Amino acid sequence: MSKFRRYWARPIARIVCALFFVSYFSVIVGACQASTPQPDPAGIVTGDRTTATDAGGNSFAVSNPGPNASPDQTKAYEDYQAMAAREPLAEKLADDVGHLRVATNFAWTLNTGYLVLFMQAGFALLTTGLVRKKNAGHLMMLNFAAYVIAFIAYYAVGFAFMYGAAGINASPTQLGGTPTLDRFLIGSGTMGFLGGKGFFLVGPAYDASVNALMLFEVVFMETAGYIIVGAICERITFWAFVAAEIFVGTILYPVFGCWVWGGGWLSQLGVTHNLGHGYVDFAGSTVVHAIGGMCAMGLAIVLGPRLGKYDKDGKARAFPAHNLVFVVTGTFILLFGWMGFNPGSTLAATDLRISVVAVNTNLAAIMGAASAMIFWHIKFGKPDISMACNGMLAGLVAITAPCAFVGPTSAVIIGLIAGVLVCVGVLFNDKIHIDDPCGAISVHGYCGLWGGISLGLFADGTYGAGWNGVGASSYLGHAGQGVTGLFYGDAHQFLVQLIGASVCAIWGLGSTLLVFKTVNAIKSMRVSPEVELEGLDVPEFGSLCYPDDIITAPDAATGIQTGISGAAKTTQTVS
Amino acid sequence: MSKFRRYWARPIARIVCALFFVSYFSVIVGACQASTPQPDPAGIVTGDRTTATDAGGNSFAVSNPGPNASPDQTKAYEDYQAMAAREPLAEKLADDVGHLRVATNFAWTLNTGYLVLFMQAGFALLTTGLVRKKNAGHLMMLNFAAYVIAFIAYYAVGFAFMYGAAGINASPTQLGGTPTLDRFLIGSGTMGFLGGKGFFLVGPAYDASVNALMLFEVVFMETAGYIIVGAICERITFWAFVAAEIFVGTILYPVFGCWVWGGGWLSQLGVTHNLGHGYVDFAGSTVVHAIGGMCAMGLAIVLGPRLGKYDKDGKARAFPAHNLVFVVTGTFILLFGWMGFNPGSTLAATDLRISVVAVNTNLAAIMGAASAMIFWHIKFGKPDISMACNGMLAGLVAITAPCAFVGPTSAVIIGLIAGVLVCVGVLFNDKIHIDDPCGAISVHGYCGLWGGISLGLFADGTYGAGWNGVGASSYLGHAGQGVTGLFYGDAHQFLVQLIGASVCAIWGLGSTLLVFKTVNAIKSMRVSPEVELEGLDVPEFGSLCYPDDIITAPDAATGIQTGISGAAKTTQTVS
Amino acid sequence: MSKFRRYWARPIARIVCALFFVSYFSVIVGACQASTPQPDPAGIVTGDRTTATDAGGNSFAVSNPGPNASPDQTKAYEDYQAMAAREPLAEKLADDVGHLRVATNFAWTLNTGYLVLFMQAGFALLTTGLVRKKNAGHLMMLNFAAYVIAFIAYYAVGFAFMYGAAGINASPTQLGGTPTLDRFLIGSGTMGFLGGKGFFLVGPAYDASVNALMLFEVVFMETAGYIIVGAICERITFWAFVAAEIFVGTILYPVFGCWVWGGGWLSQLGVTHNLGHGYVDFAGSTVVHAIGGMCAMGLAIVLGPRLGKYDKDGKARAFPAHNLVFVVTGTFILLFGWMGFNPGSTLAATDLRISVVAVNTNLAAIMGAASAMIFWHIKFGKPDISMACNGMLAGLVAITAPCAFVGPTSAVIIGLIAGVLVCVGVLFNDKIHIDDPCGAISVHGYCGLWGGISLGLFADGTYGAGWNGVGASSYLGHAGQGVTGLFYGDAHQFLVQLIGASVCAIWGLGSTLLVFKTVNAIKSMRVSPEVELEGLDVPEFGSLCYPDDIITAPDAATGIQTGISGAAKTTQTVS
Repeated sequence: MSKFRRYWARPIARIVCALFFVSYFSVIVGACQASTPQPDPAGIVTGDRTTATDAGGNSFAVSNPGPNASPDQTKAYEDYQAMAAREPLAEKLADDVGHLRVATNFAWTLNTGYLVLFMQAGFALLTTGLVRKKNAGHLMMLNFAAYVIAFIAYYAVGFAFMYGAAGINASPTQLGGTPTLDRFLIGSGTMGFLGGKGFFLVGPAYDASVNALMLFEVVFMETAGYIIVGAICERITFWAFVAAEIFVGTILYPVFGCWVWGGGWLSQLGVTHNLGHGYVDFAGSTVVHAIGGMCAMGLAIVLGPRLGKYDKDGKARAFPAHNLVFVVTGTFILLFGWMGFNPGSTLAATDLRISVVAVNTNLAAIMGAASAMIFWHIKFGKPDISMACNGMLAGLVAITAPCAFVGPTSAVIIGLIAGVLVCVGVLFNDKIHIDDPCGAISVHGYCGLWGGISLGLFADGTYGAGWNGVGASSYLGHAGQGVTGLFYGDAHQFLVQLIGASVCAIWGLGSTLLVFKTVNAIKSMRVSPEVELEGLDVPEFGSLCYPDDIITAPDAATGIQTGISGAAKTTQTVS
Repeated sequence: MSKFRRYWARPIARIVCALFFVSYFSVIVGACQASTPQPDPAGIVTGDRTTATDAGGNSFAVSNPGPNASPDQTKAYEDYQAMAAREPLAEKLADDVGHLRVATNFAWTLNTGYLVLFMQAGFALLTTGLVRKKNAGHLMMLNFAAYVIAFIAYYAVGFAFMYGAAGINASPTQLGGTPTLDRFLIGSGTMGFLGGKGFFLVGPAYDASVNALMLFEVVFMETAGYIIVGAICERITFWAFVAAEIFVGTILYPVFGCWVWGGGWLSQLGVTHNLGHGYVDFAGSTVVHAIGGMCAMGLAIVLGPRLGKYDKDGKARAFPAHNLVFVVTGTFILLFGWMGFNPGSTLAATDLRISVVAVNTNLAAIMGAASAMIFWHIKFGKPDISMACNGMLAGLVAITAPCAFVGPTSAVIIGLIAGVLVCVGVLFNDKIHIDDPCGAISVHGYCGLWGGISLGLFADGTYGAGWNGVGASSYLGHAGQGVTGLFYGDAHQFLVQLIGASVCAIWGLGSTLLVFKTVNAIKSMRVSPEVELEGLDVPEFGSLCYPDDIITAPDAATGIQTGISGAAKTTQTVS
Repeated sequence: MSKFRRYWARPIARIVCALFFVSYFSVIVGACQASTPQPDPAGIVTGDRTTATDAGGNSFAVSNPGPNASPDQTKAYEDYQAMAAREPLAEKLADDVGHLRVATNFAWTLNTGYLVLFMQAGFALLTTGLVRKKNAGHLMMLNFAAYVIAFIAYYAVGFAFMYGAAGINASPTQLGGTPTLDRFLIGSGTMGFLGGKGFFLVGPAYDASVNALMLFEVVFMETAGYIIVGAICERITFWAFVAAEIFVGTILYPVFGCWVWGGGWLSQLGVTHNLGHGYVDFAGSTVVHAIGGMCAMGLAIVLGPRLGKYDKDGKARAFPAHNLVFVVTGTFILLFGWMGFNPGSTLAATDLRISVVAVNTNLAAIMGAASAMIFWHIKFGKPDISMACNGMLAGLVAITAPCAFVGPTSAVIIGLIAGVLVCVGVLFNDKIHIDDPCGAISVHGYCGLWGGISLGLFADGTYGAGWNGVGASSYLGHAGQGVTGLFYGDAHQFLVQLIGASVCAIWGLGSTLLVFKTVNAIKSMRVSPEVELEGLDVPEFGSLCYPDDIITAPDAATGIQTGISGAAKTTQTVS
């Protein structure tokens, strides 16, 4: 009890109070706005003739263009009204079609969201496999707790911060629904900085469409939350980890997410400053991965390297992965989950580009793996299993931003470069003594930034017409021209991608260092050296991961115990 | 051969005879009923204009109301007929829309059913990880065989017992199809006790819609079949396990399932006794989990505790989980599978409440995990990894019944309570010396019952209008009012939930004790003490789970061998 | 570097040159064919009124029958035109419905394709679990690299070889899209031998529908690529493995695939030689599994048995599975993935037979497991865990070809036979000294061939009217009669199934022996005996799979080291 009081009681009490205050405030404000569109919790008025469209996205119903419309618009509306009067059954059937379209997109968004949710198991197995046996329980628990803690944070405030004004932006229209989330807390119009509605999912957020969006987005946020585990494990205390996850779920991730996906200022740079289609990141090379990777970098710097990682001469010592089966299985699960991550980011099966997205994602994955294998073979004489996995993940991370906007050959090139980049990044981090046990900084940070930038180079203009409100009728002089990169003629897009990736790196690394340098100065976030040598499983969570196993002896050359634990003591009884 | 004859040959012969008799009888009876609607095995007449509806569930086609209709109904029908005559293409297109709607729901039901199927891997890893290394193969085989045996049982008779009259109830209409399963074997109308059609999936059950239902429902039944593994492992013989699974798949699960989901008497208590919407359990807190948990309790009582579990003073001794990676990974897989379990239970993507269901399910899961972690921290000074996982599962189990009927804040509360309840339940079971190696009784039994009851408290009335034939036009004076709990003004619903949960507990525990007390009296269901000490892998299945591993020595304090096996003997050759 | 140059540099350079030449040639040719239908990379003109159909597959739109039409056809078209003129909104709405139908099928095809992709993890865990601990890293890496290498091969040329003329055949119509892949490289019309368009996915293949097909088909090819791992592991060098995967992805799999699924000659034997519906294999018992299994057999013959596998008297020695948790978990994942494999092979959720396919697949799986358990119990006194898993896989493999064409009772029988066949096959292979560490030849080869043949026996005629262009209006004198087996009256179908399965076995085994006998004669594909004894993990990939574990001593009876490795040396420091 005393321990609980010391570590948890006060912070929890404070957080709870703060969250309930925000929640209460949000409900009150929501209730006062009588003119707000009503949420539809059971989804029984979501999807009708207004959501029925053809392959090209042209609406079935022609909406009233209002008194200021052009003569053509007015005529189209009147023609439609006349036809509708003659064809009441077609009109009625259009309601069924529009609803069915929304249902198809709900199913798609949820099913792909589930795959992203399952990436949790992939990250857990990957990172647990990569560390030493003595910390395996610690690693599994971090991944488990990341889901729990970050979800609470995002549910309470993060989602509202990120998507509280999403109704302004067009992205959730594929899921039908009235735009009940429509207000920035900070900023407005094309200069939004923080969303302001949807706290605790009550009031305007108790709506079927909003919940579909929430389910999909919360698991994306979780991904950023898992990424940091790979860089901070084997030495961070559990309380500090909880703090880091709360930080990710409430502030770090939602803020940048709002800027890019919540209708915020970065997404509007096309409209406001004529910079291409504004900053574009299809599925989160930067919004999810680089943010997570940069945060991981900040935390790794704050925590410092593991004991014995660098010898007296500053050379890095290898701590081999304790279970390669887990490492590779984790990678397979992540590849599987990425089939939700990228194609699902359309939020719509009715956007048939999903198939190209899925194939591109795979092409980059295999090419990243291939180039990492070849790079390692050239440099060290053999392909390495862990680095082959990291190569595949690097390709996946890099293609995540451009996957919808590029063709297959570009996906291949992006993946090949990512596979080399991740190897170089891992070696570089060891050079500068940033100890990243699982290579998270290189995989998600460096390759995430590369992904954001690569979109500005390779986007071929076949997809994304009207993205972020730019070029709906024509772009670069062509009708239907979508997001276009430097190699296809739009230098502005390349520029804005550079800006966005830079902002991502600065925000991700800067805010993390600021917050956790402070936290660490107040109270060390790191376990004691004794605990680190013993392994964190028993000291932190009271049980060994594999209590029936015998673990090998200290490394003879260094005297550093890489994997000893209490269980070994009973060995002698046997032998 | 002799062993086979002794253990298997006669029971198998008898079961096969019995099943074929039932099957034959069923086909004959089916064939005699010429007026029965024809099954559609290829699905080529399933889904037409009669299945096209809008978001609110209003049919496109107006069906002939017959001679006793009100003037309004007759007029609506005549108007529709007149329009249809003028709009033949709209009518034709409505067939395409109705079929597409059914196809969308088929895809949803199958995809979510697959996720439930995959929970098999989750249960296997969870329970295997939680036991001692010497029984790991035994645990994996029980989970594997559970799928096989219980599936056969359910395919042969269980499905027919449960859904043989499902055509009476409205639930499968989302999947289209004519109601070919329409007869109770015992009971009739609103007092059904046992379904009577669909044995061996032949005759009226050789139908696309019936098969979609079957695929989804059989994996639910499997879940109950896995649950018992967690409580009976490390001491049950394989033949007794096979018997238990046959019992679950043929009798235990289908009977209660028929009462609640197959149109049986419990579901009709609203119609027959004015008790709210009758007994409601959306996705099976009681129908699946508490039934499994109560059966597990009965079997654990019959088998008695494992050797050495309780010391001379009656204090429970911890047998630590041998592999926490498996435990946590299993939990992740279960969470993933639950995304099929709960949202899939609409049997329809066109029911847009699926998104709320998915989010509620996650909220309860994380809150269950959080409260279990905090509870354990307060009581024992540290969060425990296994109990954190059990807390998440507890939240999932509890939200399974109410997930579609409550809002997010209620989901949070239900999960928080479940997380505490599972901890208290585990400690309580150890107090009363019911040895439940994996906590299955507490997770699925106690929290399942809590789930059924919680629906009667928290259902907010936004969903479920017309459920179980109650209040289709209005309920509690409001049109569109759905299932409503005590806190929202319907005490009747709370009462019927208490009744249903009680019936579940009595049936689950009572029938299990009755059957297996008898079986155990005839022949002990438990392995010999020598086998239990050695571990069941080799004696039961001829091979160690990890033959290349060395296993630790007996516990010095107690003399109880927690994990020794043959492999250890070869160690000395090395060291 | 030197090693790289010696092993990799030249072959890679050559392959790259060759592939780019093919790619370049393909683009040029594509560009010259101006009349070719245009690909639709963003999917914005895919799906319109022409793809709207009802449950029976009847088109909404009536297409212009041309000048040579019958009077009935002409009248139907004119009637439709007249109605369309009166109902412009219904026409417009039909575009939305047709597009939505394609979107529904895209989502289905991708989601089920993802499940097939995930089978990678299942194969990896299954095969890794089945081998000795010292080779666990090797096994995981083979499975990982198989995905990477075979994907590259299929992307570059395999897909084009297989589906380059798929536009001729009707199979991808469910996914909409214009038939941009429409040319055989070798053969033409009903005598196609090799597809000729779609290399590197550029030009005509940069199309949403083509990419949906590609995603689904590439993961099928991967399955064949994983299958061989089970038979060649624990002794093959990595370079030889890479060569084998390139062979599978470019030649072996695509050629037979083209013959059966790409509109090739075997599929057209019904049209050309009146042999039933031509060779039919719904989801690949032969096209995927037997091809993989026969290739595995050829490679196992070329490589020869593992050291110590057969003693002086020629008796097989058991090398027990090192981790049964992985074995069973892998099997569960494969079962889960098969829910994509078979039902997904409709490429359409709008084909409601998917539910029957899903149930049949499960029935065969459980019956295969049950009969393998019983067979082993009769023969050896106990059910065996690994063989129970193999029995389930055998049932799955066998039902893969007939799953859509048979009823539940036939699925049960097919599975029961497969479960016995796999046991007999494993024992037989050990008799003839073909060393197959994971039973891949028996599971996938023998049971795959059984699957292809069983279709010719049990197909009940309820499904598949018009398959491969045969019997669209009527077959065997009945309208709507589909593919029909011997027991239901069509001996021709049985004959063509025998032919197809024989061609599969001859092509699979023959081409593999031809190619790899040659390769092995030039340079041994096998590691040195020292490496084989030590385990391949460190020699091939530089790291142990479980470096912190102690591994048991050599088998005392034989002197053969089954699992020793470097890590054991440090043990003495502890004990």
